[in-house]
Amino acid sequence: MPDTSLETLIEALRKLPGVGAKSAQRMAFHLLQHDRPGALQLSRALDTAVTSVRHCARCNTFTEEPICGICLDPARDAHQLCVVETPADQATLERTGSYRGLYYVLMGRMSPLDGIGAREVGASNLLDRALDGVVSEVILATSFTAEGEATSHVLSEALKLRGIRVTRLARGVPAGSELEYVDLSTIAHALVDRR
Amino acid sequence: MPDTSLETLIEALRKLPGVGAKSAQRMAFHLLQHDRPGALQLSRALDTAVTSVRHCARCNTFTEEPICGICLDPARDAHQLCVVETPADQATLERTGSYRGLYYVLMGRMSPLDGIGAREVGASNLLDRALDGVVSEVILATSFTAEGEATSHVLSEALKLRGIRVTRLARGVPAGSELEYVDLSTIAHALVDRR
Ligand SMILES: [Zn+2]
Ligand SMILES: [Zn+2]
Repeated sequence: MPDTSLETLIEALRKLPGVGAKSAQRMAFHLLQHDRPGALQLSRALDTAVTSVRHCARCNTFTEEPICGICLDPARDAHQLCVVETPADQATLERTGSYRGLYYVLMGRMSPLDGIGAREVGASNLLDRALDGVVSEVILATSFTAEGEATSHVLSEALKLRGIRVTRLARGVPAGSELEYVDLSTIAHALVDRR
Repeated sequence: MPDTSLETLIEALRKLPGVGAKSAQRMAFHLLQHDRPGALQLSRALDTAVTSVRHCARCNTFTEEPICGICLDPARDAHQLCVVETPADQATLERTGSYRGLYYVLMGRMSPLDGIGAREVGASNLLDRALDGVVSEVILATSFTAEGEATSHVLSEALKLRGIRVTRLARGVPAGSELEYVDLSTIAHALVDRR
C-alpha cells in the first residue's frame, strides 16, 4: 500500500501537464524501483532551474543571465524582431538557419476565453522593445491556430498604430498547426515569403 | 534559446517513463513559466520519497517503516498470501474489499526476453515468505498478459514443489459486460473456469 511520501510524490507528478493518475503512479514506481539516481537528478534539476532560470530583459525568453546570448550577439540584425510564443518555437526557428534578426518571446498566446489577453502576454513590453528606434520590422511568428492568429492580429494592430512595419510568416505553414511541430523547410519557406 | 540548467531539466524529465523530447520541453516550460511552486514541491517530494521509501521486510511493497501496515494488521488472515506485480495492483485488490489475507508484491514480472527472470523478481524471497508455516494458500494475481502468465507459471511450479497450495485469479467475463462485446479468448477461458 502507498504511504504518505509516496502519495505526495504521485500528487506532485500529477501536476505535470499531460500526466494523469495512472501515469503519475507509473512514474513514481519507476523512479523508486528502478531509477533512484534519476529521481535525485530530477529533484536537483528542478531546484537549479527554479533558482537560476529568469527572463531575458530584452526578449523575455528563458536565460540564466540578465540578457540572453542571442540578444547580446552583435552579428544578429537588430532591425528585425521576430515575435514567437515560446522558447521552443524560437529554437525551431533558429534551427532553420534562415533568420538572423532578434526575437521577442511572448511566453504564451492570447486566449480571451481563458482570460489571457494582451496584458497577460506582456504586449506592452513587446511594444517598448519594438519602439527602441532600431527595429524597423516586426515579424509575427505566432502559431497558425485560432489563438495564435488572434494574438497576431492584436499585436499587429498595436504595432501598426505606432508606425512599425509588421509582417506575418507566410501561409506556407499548414493552417491549424503549432509551429513547434512543423518541418523546418516549410518554416524556412514561410520566412522568405512573409508578407 | 534554452540554456544549461533548462536543458538539464528537460533531460531529467525525459527519463520519466512515457515522456519524450516534446513532452519534456512542454513540462519544463509549464513549470518555469506557470508553476514554480509546483516545481519546488516536486523536487522536495522526489528527495523525500528517495530518502524514506523502502521495501516492507515481509511483503516487499513500498513503505516508510520496516514492516508495512497491512503486514502488521492482526485482523488480516495470515493463511492467505496474494502475489501481485506492483503496489498499484495491490491497491486495486484492496479497493475491491473482497480480500482479507496478506500480500507479496513482486515489484515487477518476469520477462525472459529482457533478462528479467525468477531472480530479478525476487522469487526466492517469495518462497521464504510462503514457507513461514502459517501460509496455507498462495493466490497468484499477476497480470493476464504473456509476461504475467509466465511469471505465474514459474512461481506456481516452485511453490507446488514445496507443497504449498496455489490458486490463480479466475479468468472470465468482466462484470457488467455484454457477452457480444467480450473477446472470444476471454469467453473461452470463462467457459473453462466455469464454476
Ligand atoms: Zn534575449
Ligand atoms: Zn508488508
